[in-house]
Amino acid sequence: MTDYRIALIPGDGIGAEVLPPARAVLDRVGARHGVTFRYDEFDWSCTRYLAEGAMMPADGVDRLRHHDAILLGAVGWPGVPDHVSLWGLLIPIRRQFRQYVNLRPIRVFEGVPSPVLGAAPGMDFVVVRENVEGEYSEVGGRFNRGFPDEMAVQEAIFTRPGVTRILDYAFELAATRRGHVTSATKSNGIVHTMPFWDELVVEAGARHPAVEWRQEHIDALVAKVVLDPSRFDVIVGSNLFGDILSDLAAAVAGSIGIAPAGNIDPTREFPSMFEPVHGSAPDIAGQGVANPLGAIWSAAMMLDHLGHREAGDEVMAAVTGVLAGSPVRTRDLGGTASTDEFARAVLDAL
Amino acid sequence: MTDYRIALIPGDGIGAEVLPPARAVLDRVGARHGVTFRYDEFDWSCTRYLAEGAMMPADGVDRLRHHDAILLGAVGWPGVPDHVSLWGLLIPIRRQFRQYVNLRPIRVFEGVPSPVLGAAPGMDFVVVRENVEGEYSEVGGRFNRGFPDEMAVQEAIFTRPGVTRILDYAFELAATRRGHVTSATKSNGIVHTMPFWDELVVEAGARHPAVEWRQEHIDALVAKVVLDPSRFDVIVGSNLFGDILSDLAAAVAGSIGIAPAGNIDPTREFPSMFEPVHGSAPDIAGQGVANPLGAIWSAAMMLDHLGHREAGDEVMAAVTGVLAGSPVRTRDLGGTASTDEFARAVLDAL
Ligand SMILES: CC(C)[C@H](C(=O)O)[C@@H](O)C(=O)O
Ligand SMILES: CC(C)[C@H](C(=O)O)[C@@H](O)C(=O)O
Repeated sequence: MTDYRIALIPGDGIGAEVLPPARAVLDRVGARHGVTFRYDEFDWSCTRYLAEGAMMPADGVDRLRHHDAILLGAVGWPGVPDHVSLWGLLIPIRRQFRQYVNLRPIRVFEGVPSPVLGAAPGMDFVVVRENVEGEYSEVGGRFNRGFPDEMAVQEAIFTRPGVTRILDYAFELAATRRGHVTSATKSNGIVHTMPFWDELVVEAGARHPAVEWRQEHIDALVAKVVLDPSRFDVIVGSNLFGDILSDLAAAVAGSIGIAPAGNIDPTREFPSMFEPVHGSAPDIAGQGVANPLGAIWSAAMMLDHLGHREAGDEVMAAVTGVLAGSPVRTRDLGGTASTDEFARAVLDAL
Repeated sequence: MTDYRIALIPGDGIGAEVLPPARAVLDRVGARHGVTFRYDEFDWSCTRYLAEGAMMPADGVDRLRHHDAILLGAVGWPGVPDHVSLWGLLIPIRRQFRQYVNLRPIRVFEGVPSPVLGAAPGMDFVVVRENVEGEYSEVGGRFNRGFPDEMAVQEAIFTRPGVTRILDYAFELAATRRGHVTSATKSNGIVHTMPFWDELVVEAGARHPAVEWRQEHIDALVAKVVLDPSRFDVIVGSNLFGDILSDLAAAVAGSIGIAPAGNIDPTREFPSMFEPVHGSAPDIAGQGVANPLGAIWSAAMMLDHLGHREAGDEVMAAVTGVLAGSPVRTRDLGGTASTDEFARAVLDAL
């Protein structure tokens, strides 16, 4: 019997509605694989910020340190500026736990239509996004604030170890898949950091001779994700480019509302964090109609990460079965099912 | 009789193949409107770089100064790093001539299929891209080069005057269209420059009360460009975001190979520059099969800019007519016509 301690951070809005289904799925599939989960729930959120002036306690990250993994619902709420809520909760966890990989699988599900011709059914790739450095940086500031010559500067910082480890992760992942890496760049416009990134891609390619790779400028790449999505296997990009590409790719696959993300520390020194990509959705929060699939898929990624790949696959098989074989759908996918009804269908399929 | 002096820079690859059709179209439509064009051609290109070590002469930009406008074909060729060719020709012209607006119209043509369901026929918007500051900056560099702790830093610089003028341009353009601006941001991740941009959008909105506006984070925005492209009227973004959005939008519209761009100095102190977006296309260069439509559309934008809107509209009506009413198409659009055959069809329609 393996026992895992999981930190649950429902966060804001529908975050609190989608984590219980994910938890129920974990318990159900865990039971079959001799795995149990103990959950510690944390109320860190914009609600907390508005009441107490901080998204989480000063020692928040420390309190998560001894968990085996973290499941997060959603962060952000109207009335709290996004950079306050995100940099007060999500981003410090990513950084302090050195979750330098943001992993975003992209696929087309039978029964979930893609808006793009030719997206289904060949489309199946993974966006590997650098998650702790690059364009998301606290270095920079405002100059001459309030004056006509005011300016803002922002430093993007790319380090050799930081870029190398994410590239190696991407190449190694590709080696277990179809053996192809696409590197997102913009070295024709961004002349210091991107040529550096490109050089390190050449080095990574040399270290992984069995993997083919190519680079694409981000502007051309977003176009190709729309025009020919099935050509990709692993796309690796900086923090910003990975963010853009993964949301775009999920939209192309028809699954923007159900996409998952893993924030992973591959060294396993720190807990990794899994979260649906959809956000807190203030427009539908509190109505019990949110799609729990992003959270369930994130839980499946967590199982994978914890070494229970078969259990993760069973969860995804159940999900795939419900989508392909039944009309049960939440509203975002054109159905009328509630969060609970959809969750029940997945549990039954398990 | 108005007489314009136009600088032609064919540049590399198919650049030299698509400018002659654009020129023929200008001459034909000009004759009807009492407008003549004199052309000065410049051989600035990667070929020149490989022979003489510079993309253009040291006083290159100066030599263009007294032209009424510039028509550029394409820049870039294998064997010359992109950041060398682009920063040796295209980008200095944009910057030294303060062409702070990069204007990219996006539309769906009857007869040119979009790969995205629901893109046609409602899709008709303009991407207004900041073109001289922001993420494309020479400020930054490499530290500890060659050592394990090597890093690259890149400063993005946004100034109040620079952001204000591009926003005002976008709001004023929207006022002549459907009255709606979407501002691309990423203030939840990029915490110095993007919140600054957002503040200036609020100010611009207050200056233009008749125009509605909203902001979208770039990751959500790229998804919406795919999922609901007809909702947009004017999208305004930074140098990098505008670059990404305009290529993406052209792909969604099915017109990636025919999209035009205007690099505009709205003060008219300096000449503006018009260029197809497609690039030099080494794979088909020299075969006479390139699609001249991007160059022709760019020439139509140039007519507009010079104050001959009706002439520009006539060019676009001819293009629209050929696409909708005839099977004449170059290869990229699934046809067999040569560059010349397609150009002839447009000239005949004029
Ligand atoms: C070639 C490159 C530097 C350029 C840019 O990014 O500005 C191009 O993509 C464009 O959009 O005109
Ligand atoms: C909310 C935001 C800061 C975050 C990011 O850009 O990292 C989100 O878009 C994501 O992709 O997880």
